[in-house]
Amino acid sequence: MTATTNDCIFCKIVAGDIPANIVYEDEHCIAFKDINPRADTHVLLIPRKHIASLMELQDTDKELFGHMMITLPKVAKQLGLDNGYRTIVNTGPGGGQEVYHVHFHILAGKGKLPFA
Amino acid sequence: MTATTNDCIFCKIVAGDIPANIVYEDEHCIAFKDINPRADTHVLLIPRKHIASLMELQDTDKELFGHMMITLPKVAKQLGLDNGYRTIVNTGPGGGQEVYHVHFHILAGKGKLPFA
Repeated sequence: MTATTNDCIFCKIVAGDIPANIVYEDEHCIAFKDINPRADTHVLLIPRKHIASLMELQDTDKELFGHMMITLPKVAKQLGLDNGYRTIVNTGPGGGQEVYHVHFHILAGKGKLPFA
Repeated sequence: MTATTNDCIFCKIVAGDIPANIVYEDEHCIAFKDINPRADTHVLLIPRKHIASLMELQDTDKELFGHMMITLPKVAKQLGLDNGYRTIVNTGPGGGQEVYHVHFHILAGKGKLPFA
C-alpha cells in the first residue's frame, strides 16, 4: 500500500517503463488518460516524484503542488473542457484510493457516475 | 455566475458577515462545515482571495494553492480522518460547480453519494 518508487505503477509510467497515453508533461508532472475511464474524459495528473498520498505531503512539497494546481486548468483547457470538469483526489482506504502515488482525476462529460 | 467579492457568499463568510462553522483558518485560507453535508464529514477549504473557479487561476496563485494543498491534509488530520477522505473540486457548469469561489470539498464517512 505504501509502494516505493520501485514497485509503483505510476513511477513506471513516469520512467517510461509502462506505456501510457500522455497528454501533458513537464519537468514536475505528467498527465495521461486513465486506462479504465469513468467518464468521456478521464485524465490523471500526477507528480513525477513518488508521494504515496496527500497524507504524506510535506511542507517542502508546497511549490510542487502549487505548480500542479496551476497546471491542472491548463491541461483541462488543452483537453477542450471549456464547459467544466470535476477534479478528484482520493486519499487512503476510506477515500477509495487505488494507486498509492498521488493523482488528480480530471473528469468531464457523460459516463458512469464518478467514484459512486 | 462570476460573482465578485461583493456578492459572493463565500467572501461574506471570509469577512465574517455570514456565520459558518469554521474548523480551520490562517491568513490565506479557511475551512468550514458545508451547510448541506453530503457525507458524515463534509468540510470546504477555500482561499480568502476571491477566485471564481480553477479556470480563473493565474500563475501568481501558485504559492497560494501550494499552501492550500499542504494545508488540506492537516485539516483532514485535525478532523480525525485518519482512514482517508475524498477531495473534490468542481469547475464550471459541466463540473457541477455551485458556488463561484474556488473550494475544495473534503468528504469522509457514510453519506449520500457525493456529487452523483
